[in-house]
Amino acid sequence: MIDRLETQAAIRLQPQFEEQATAMDPIGDGRVVIENVWPEIDGGRTPVKRVVGDEVEVWADIFTDGHDKLAAELLYRGPSDRNWCRVPMTHRENDRWSARFTVMEIGRYYFTIEAWRDPYASWRDEITKKRDAGRDVTLETVEGVEIVHTAARLAQGADAIAFQPLINALDKADTAKKLKILLSDEEADLLKRNAERLALSSYNPAIEVVVDRKAAQFSAWYELFPRSASNNATRHGTFDDVIARLPYVRDLGFDVLYFPPIHPIGKTNRKGKNNSLTPDPDDVGSVYAIGSEDGGHDAVHPQLGTLEDFRRLVAAAHEHGLEIALDFAIQCSPDHPWIKQHPEWFDWRPDGTLKYAENPPKKYEDIVNVEFYAGGLPSLWHALRDVVLFWAERGVKIFRVDNPHTKPLPFWRWMIREVNAQHPDVIFLAEAFTRPKMMKALAKVGFQQSYTYFTWRNTKAELTQYLAELSSGEMAELYRPNFFANTPDINPYYLQTGGRAGFIVRATLAATLSSVYGIYSGFEICEAEPLPGREEYLDSEKYELKVRDYDAPGNIKNLIRALNKARRDNPALHDFRNIRFLNAWNDNILSFVKMTEAKDNAVMVLVNLDPHHRQEADYEVPLWEFGLPDSASIAVEDLLSGGRFTLHGKVQRIALWPEGNQVMVWKLIPPSATG
Amino acid sequence: MIDRLETQAAIRLQPQFEEQATAMDPIGDGRVVIENVWPEIDGGRTPVKRVVGDEVEVWADIFTDGHDKLAAELLYRGPSDRNWCRVPMTHRENDRWSARFTVMEIGRYYFTIEAWRDPYASWRDEITKKRDAGRDVTLETVEGVEIVHTAARLAQGADAIAFQPLINALDKADTAKKLKILLSDEEADLLKRNAERLALSSYNPAIEVVVDRKAAQFSAWYELFPRSASNNATRHGTFDDVIARLPYVRDLGFDVLYFPPIHPIGKTNRKGKNNSLTPDPDDVGSVYAIGSEDGGHDAVHPQLGTLEDFRRLVAAAHEHGLEIALDFAIQCSPDHPWIKQHPEWFDWRPDGTLKYAENPPKKYEDIVNVEFYAGGLPSLWHALRDVVLFWAERGVKIFRVDNPHTKPLPFWRWMIREVNAQHPDVIFLAEAFTRPKMMKALAKVGFQQSYTYFTWRNTKAELTQYLAELSSGEMAELYRPNFFANTPDINPYYLQTGGRAGFIVRATLAATLSSVYGIYSGFEICEAEPLPGREEYLDSEKYELKVRDYDAPGNIKNLIRALNKARRDNPALHDFRNIRFLNAWNDNILSFVKMTEAKDNAVMVLVNLDPHHRQEADYEVPLWEFGLPDSASIAVEDLLSGGRFTLHGKVQRIALWPEGNQVMVWKLIPPSATG
Repeated sequence: MIDRLETQAAIRLQPQFEEQATAMDPIGDGRVVIENVWPEIDGGRTPVKRVVGDEVEVWADIFTDGHDKLAAELLYRGPSDRNWCRVPMTHRENDRWSARFTVMEIGRYYFTIEAWRDPYASWRDEITKKRDAGRDVTLETVEGVEIVHTAARLAQGADAIAFQPLINALDKADTAKKLKILLSDEEADLLKRNAERLALSSYNPAIEVVVDRKAAQFSAWYELFPRSASNNATRHGTFDDVIARLPYVRDLGFDVLYFPPIHPIGKTNRKGKNNSLTPDPDDVGSVYAIGSEDGGHDAVHPQLGTLEDFRRLVAAAHEHGLEIALDFAIQCSPDHPWIKQHPEWFDWRPDGTLKYAENPPKKYEDIVNVEFYAGGLPSLWHALRDVVLFWAERGVKIFRVDNPHTKPLPFWRWMIREVNAQHPDVIFLAEAFTRPKMMKALAKVGFQQSYTYFTWRNTKAELTQYLAELSSGEMAELYRPNFFANTPDINPYYLQTGGRAGFIVRATLAATLSSVYGIYSGFEICEAEPLPGREEYLDSEKYELKVRDYDAPGNIKNLIRALNKARRDNPALHDFRNIRFLNAWNDNILSFVKMTEAKDNAVMVLVNLDPHHRQEADYEVPLWEFGLPDSASIAVEDLLSGGRFTLHGKVQRIALWPEGNQVMVWKLIPPSATG
Repeated sequence: MIDRLETQAAIRLQPQFEEQATAMDPIGDGRVVIENVWPEIDGGRTPVKRVVGDEVEVWADIFTDGHDKLAAELLYRGPSDRNWCRVPMTHRENDRWSARFTVMEIGRYYFTIEAWRDPYASWRDEITKKRDAGRDVTLETVEGVEIVHTAARLAQGADAIAFQPLINALDKADTAKKLKILLSDEEADLLKRNAERLALSSYNPAIEVVVDRKAAQFSAWYELFPRSASNNATRHGTFDDVIARLPYVRDLGFDVLYFPPIHPIGKTNRKGKNNSLTPDPDDVGSVYAIGSEDGGHDAVHPQLGTLEDFRRLVAAAHEHGLEIALDFAIQCSPDHPWIKQHPEWFDWRPDGTLKYAENPPKKYEDIVNVEFYAGGLPSLWHALRDVVLFWAERGVKIFRVDNPHTKPLPFWRWMIREVNAQHPDVIFLAEAFTRPKMMKALAKVGFQQSYTYFTWRNTKAELTQYLAELSSGEMAELYRPNFFANTPDINPYYLQTGGRAGFIVRATLAATLSSVYGIYSGFEICEAEPLPGREEYLDSEKYELKVRDYDAPGNIKNLIRALNKARRDNPALHDFRNIRFLNAWNDNILSFVKMTEAKDNAVMVLVNLDPHHRQEADYEVPLWEFGLPDSASIAVEDLLSGGRFTLHGKVQRIALWPEGNQVMVWKLIPPSATG
């Protein structure tokens, strides 16, 4: 075995100090140092993420030996660009340069940097100092003319023509006149643009930017079980029942309608209500026990309807401005057709059985897992990719992936690239609740969205710390947090105990802290009855049909509708990296503002995190963000109630309480802005 | 020009996401994630530095999908290793692993990491949980035996033989006995070592570690001008005069004797005393105006002696335990032979002249600079390398490089590698006082030592902040700070105004804060008369022969001798990264301790930074570092006076003042240590 290890390890010594090869590069590549580039993750080995319309602001340290003046360009290319596009970089301070470009197309962009010694700028700097010191600069003027002649030779197109009068004028001029021409501001641009690029140096590597459509970063999700769409415990729901629910979902303002698995459900070891191992004959089983004699991952559960019914559902959803997200759960019931068709995709035990899935002491008797290596490579990988492509071709462009952290990362990296190569608009959401590094790793290999720890972050300290982590540094570059307030798996203790006010708090936080968020049906009517002592729902919909009164008293549908409208109307809420927490002198009151970069849209949020008591606080209105003095007035539009009023001065006082207003979501309209 | 740019930039899109190629690797390379490796600089593109005997402690995040147990090895190889050496890594916390290795040889080491899924450890973990839950594990036992058989097949050498009795015992045993054998601690090591390495994953790249001899990190430098070694203004000093001075230098305890350039000095535009442009006929000129009809960089100034005299000097120095460091200044007087022999190495102006060096408004009329590109490539590069090799072959193994930041970084990267390939023991010190990023970049391209801003860091806040920067993070991995207290170019204001106490302060700080430090002659007799208003010496030795009374009253030779002895005797002072600042409640009193990693040697320093006044402070003795309670006693050896005493308790009070003790350097001897 050691021999194989040696071979594997030995090949890794060759390429890495290849930069040495450029040391004697005659152009002088490397003479201008380009380093400490941002964004760059894992030495350039991990792409960063953006959505269409975003800007990529690139920073780098750029410097060279001696005192020569430098110039630098940011080079970028999008999926449709045949050549690099170039943006001049600007020196900021202490050898740090920056430039930005906008990504306008879904797909993979690359950027890199070139920098060089600019002979015209260096000459101009030097001759100016000497002339100002009263020294004779006749010879320097001759050298300046030489720089112009070289630039003229290199110029192409319109610039080449533009050089002609300049060259002619220089030919006729005396030294003083020459100098005047050479230093004139009119000629500086032409000269700077065309001057020889001495010691032209390139940054290695180029950094990849994966650009997704905007929904990857901005969307509101609603999750429901199609089989409950009949809202009748004695009649299995159908895709047509879901079609009838679409107006309801759209009226609440959601963009994405997400279904747990819709595939045939196995009968072997089927689970009964509340995850029991002794199902009644009419129990519907877990939707995650995928596959039966009726088909596997590319089939639909017969009681839901047909593929044609599903097609109509997708079309109807699109008509309502909704898109459908499906669950992608890589596991099989013992009745899945693959088990007989592809025994090589499974890990058979010495007694000829398959091990059911478990995470001791938890057992999942109704499913078995596939093997990605050995017999599974590459045929299983292709089959799984083809499952996603099958649904993508039927108009499903968002997949919520079940437990991706228990499947190999190389598989995800490969599959997401394969799918996006054919369908660049497909978005994968990683449903991983595990250790932080694995959750980040899934984002690194390509998941466009990720579940988060939001569900368990309740206090002001927890929320501010977690949002700081998500909205800065590497995380902000690659991890898009989808803040689900509840899921069929998670009935958070805060919601179990917080009552209606608790639901108001968590809905508001989810919808405004992150630009992507979701709720699972029942949330809007404050459903929270738990399995005693557990963070799970009693009579979980995972194992039975569910009936609800969606107009139950105390529902928070108006709030959700208002939150989703506020999100749509206010670009400040379309990003999650623009959060600024504000002073509110009460640990139960969380206050923050989100603004567009141009500050032409600003939303301020105040939340009483205590669902049981009235809380009061002095708090600060962020007048300084708009260049206003502490004594200024600012107009406010209450995005939940629709009211308008004016706040006078930076420090204000507010009371928030369960029976009144538990939260505030305000649009701030500074005097200069058109509101 | 754009075409050339396109070509250059276009080639950089190919190799970088080559990791994709391994996504479908049948072994499963990449299934175990190895990332966030430390030390790793610039994504592995910049080597880190160590000296012989150092340890390299390597950290990485290592994790995989699912719940399988992992194992990892640190792989490293030195210049003489034909294969990778392997050290098991240990999981510390939160998916962070570490291991360390010792570098024993000068040259280039590489390290990387491999990690894999360990089927035996995973099996053991799972079966233990199931057994403890009272479940039947018959089938799991059969699977365990299979793991052993696979391991036995893979085992080689002694391990292969060791498996035989185990296999035999398993064959004969019933299930209970089999399980007992499989779980026995005696077999665990053998099994862990030989179990199949599933999903064997490799880190890319391998990180380079440049290992230098210890002098790169630990040495005390003394600088003198050989031409002043006669100590007689009317007689030019010779190498023989320097030989006569060697006992003096060695008696003070220095290791390295450094000379400014010793080459022939040009006559054209020779500088007079105090940098004047109107020299007297007998003025000796600047030693930095290198080259005359007597030769260039590989010749010695005739008035100093011959190459044979120099050979005797080097030999005599070695006999005194001193090594010689030479200046490597890449510039030429207008009389340098290269100007006629290699006009292509210079940048001629339109009028057929050469531009003298300048940094407006500063002018260096007596030197011209070479051109590294165009006509200089590659012949000038080879010539400059050969100059260094010429002196290295004559026993000079340390070069202080003059103003490296005004020469191309690719040249240094190339030249240092070329020289070290033939003479791995050669050390280059970068004399760059410029912007921080360029100083760091010089260390990145290979300079083994660097000048610093120490000369201008005087207050407690400045010193603690600067040392924190140097002793942690990337800087600690690649930048070895040589703390010169003064140089022929720098007569610091602090020394100009601080009197004898100021010299005591700066000598103590230089010698104890960093493990490499130096003084320029005259320092030991507190020479500080400035050019008025300037940070330079009056009657600078750069332009004239200098005569000094080295026994002048008030000299601090005893202090320097004691400091150098303390440095030699105490390994705690052989490093600069081990500094811990201590509480001393007076902003004028700096206190710190340095310890070996094993804490078997500890030196504590207290310095009154105020050279004019008595300062008192409560301060803390770092008893906690030795696991001692605050009330403990600790023995102290005063390394400057030789006295011994005991301190009782953590908080103590001290007074330090110019007429008494301005500084304290103590060896701490905790009760358990043998002092």
